[in-house]
Amino acid sequence: MRKLKDKAAIVGIGATEISKNSGRSEMRMAVEAISEAVADAGLSLRDVDGLCAVSMDNNDESEIFRNIGGRELKFWSRTNFSGGGTLGPVLHAAMAVDAGIADVVVCYRSLNQRSEYRFGQALEFKTPSALNALFSYHAYHGAQTAAAMMAFIIQRYMHEYGATSADFANIALAARKHASTNPKAVFYGKPLTFDDYMASRLVTDPLRLFDICLENDAAVACVVTSAERAKSLRQKPALIRAGAQAASHGLLGGIINYYGDNIAQFDEMKLLGKQLYAAADLTPADIDVGIIYDHFGPSVMLSLEALGFCKQGEAKDFIKNGNIEVGGSLPVNTHGGQVGEGYVHGMNGITEAVRQVRGTAANQVKNVRNVLVTSGSGLPTSGAILSAA
Amino acid sequence: MRKLKDKAAIVGIGATEISKNSGRSEMRMAVEAISEAVADAGLSLRDVDGLCAVSMDNNDESEIFRNIGGRELKFWSRTNFSGGGTLGPVLHAAMAVDAGIADVVVCYRSLNQRSEYRFGQALEFKTPSALNALFSYHAYHGAQTAAAMMAFIIQRYMHEYGATSADFANIALAARKHASTNPKAVFYGKPLTFDDYMASRLVTDPLRLFDICLENDAAVACVVTSAERAKSLRQKPALIRAGAQAASHGLLGGIINYYGDNIAQFDEMKLLGKQLYAAADLTPADIDVGIIYDHFGPSVMLSLEALGFCKQGEAKDFIKNGNIEVGGSLPVNTHGGQVGEGYVHGMNGITEAVRQVRGTAANQVKNVRNVLVTSGSGLPTSGAILSAA
Repeated sequence: MRKLKDKAAIVGIGATEISKNSGRSEMRMAVEAISEAVADAGLSLRDVDGLCAVSMDNNDESEIFRNIGGRELKFWSRTNFSGGGTLGPVLHAAMAVDAGIADVVVCYRSLNQRSEYRFGQALEFKTPSALNALFSYHAYHGAQTAAAMMAFIIQRYMHEYGATSADFANIALAARKHASTNPKAVFYGKPLTFDDYMASRLVTDPLRLFDICLENDAAVACVVTSAERAKSLRQKPALIRAGAQAASHGLLGGIINYYGDNIAQFDEMKLLGKQLYAAADLTPADIDVGIIYDHFGPSVMLSLEALGFCKQGEAKDFIKNGNIEVGGSLPVNTHGGQVGEGYVHGMNGITEAVRQVRGTAANQVKNVRNVLVTSGSGLPTSGAILSAA
Repeated sequence: MRKLKDKAAIVGIGATEISKNSGRSEMRMAVEAISEAVADAGLSLRDVDGLCAVSMDNNDESEIFRNIGGRELKFWSRTNFSGGGTLGPVLHAAMAVDAGIADVVVCYRSLNQRSEYRFGQALEFKTPSALNALFSYHAYHGAQTAAAMMAFIIQRYMHEYGATSADFANIALAARKHASTNPKAVFYGKPLTFDDYMASRLVTDPLRLFDICLENDAAVACVVTSAERAKSLRQKPALIRAGAQAASHGLLGGIINYYGDNIAQFDEMKLLGKQLYAAADLTPADIDVGIIYDHFGPSVMLSLEALGFCKQGEAKDFIKNGNIEVGGSLPVNTHGGQVGEGYVHGMNGITEAVRQVRGTAANQVKNVRNVLVTSGSGLPTSGAILSAA
């Protein structure tokens, strides 16, 4: 697995605004984000010869390629499992670049996940399909939304380890604090207090309104090329020190780890961390910033434990006293996360990780060497460690 | 691109029967084919840590993994563009194995494409979607089926190069000849005559009934691991000497190259061949068997030209006199192809290529060193060269 270490780099990032109504197509937004990312890298759209995305993205690679004026497309891949697949494209891009299959691979995600459709709506079962067969395992027990699926997990976590709403507040407050000072964030200029949090609506017990990721329209893209080529490009490269995908046995493709060994632990995140640290020759102590996927804030606690930042059941102590805020031992989601900056299926976490490595984040952590980025938890997942050269 | 040369190998193959009604789910068939492929390799299902498929496959990786009793899944990818993506999974598997991301990657395709749905039906446009937006470019001009889309291309090819139905017969007869002596083929024991072909129904001018691929239920799987590990396994390995994906500008995701430079040529196949030969350090003269995707028989002629087996417009001469039959200079689709053996989205071509390398094909070519396998033409495509050690 170490063969890919530092062989490829993210050299360009781009994004649209995050809004409740983009007023334009997902295709147009994808092309905007890609154009910005390629320009950021100092490359031409004609240099692009690879395109990677999560399976759920609605924008066909061949149409994107035509719309950006591409010439020869030599690599494309998709990664399944919605928000769990977000870092798959980055890994695939690094593999393609290192193998010499493609030179400039763009990873993209574009979704009008507010104006066109909303992931937060209860799933319907109008037509027989593989996805509906999957959800039929649990939907009739009440788990018809992603939040309700995760609520099962968090309930069990509270039972096992004694975590409470007051603990979960630390996740929400840290994210909002970062968002409030990030001009790109939906919650820019809007901090949250502990009392606000505790008074907020229980959407699906124990998840409160401010535990739940935003619904919005946005697109994000990043450009991957070889570390060698990156040396001559415009930006300080964010080296892909490690990338991995992980699913443990018993895990199915929704946020439903109900068939695994322990519902209150993220086995897939343990497997992810094991692979990432081995591939990167690093330990949790070497990570300066954690971009931990927060579809639902409390899940970050399970991820921190699974990734070895603290022991099992001890995240409620680890996240106290500003320890996951800028200035703490592990600043987490310095952009504000999916609950604070906006929901771009975790892809905005990649751009934040790149900014932290570059030293250009709104809430910049000092002397960043290594940033660990994860994607969705409670389902097959993916992640990366991005590092300064 | 030469970095991957001979680093990985296909070490196991498996398949269900090909039928008009499998009588069981696509999931069950996928698991059957995977189980057979893994056993063929002399491996255990618990060894599997990667799963790759084309995007259109309905079988979720996490459900397959659970059903085969997998433990840790470390890699998965999908490849878009229906039959054009078929060799993408093999390339991705080789990349993952070579990079040390996964050790044993299974590529699979399972479809009840007769008893549950039929690709040959005219597309409907009941709901707005990205796919429907794409087809709206041409469907209203009559191209509502894949066959009708390809018919446009073949009509132009006839106009440009003077090919006729009598020429196309050579493709159909060669495929059927091979199928008639392949016990796994739908047309086993059923040869075709020139007169049969010429008298057959015009489905969409110039495509006749026997130019068009079969509609059936089937599943196929293959197992990819490192060439090093392959040495100690049961079967003679089929080394992945080269793998590539290719889409040229102007190409969209249907069988609609109508926006490219020349409708009568497959630019994507030219790009594919260029990459494969460069990666493999081979030329067309080094290829002993061609498994050339034949969703529609006459398209094989355009592919042969694009891949450099003959000059532009000269395929009608190249395919004469048994030259693409066993014993000719380039035996093509020795299993009978998608029109003769059965339609498994081209994945049965991979298993045939492996058999030819192993020396175990029903219609075995002598002294096979290199087999070139392609996937769908007229859309973004993929391919590989498999070689004997």
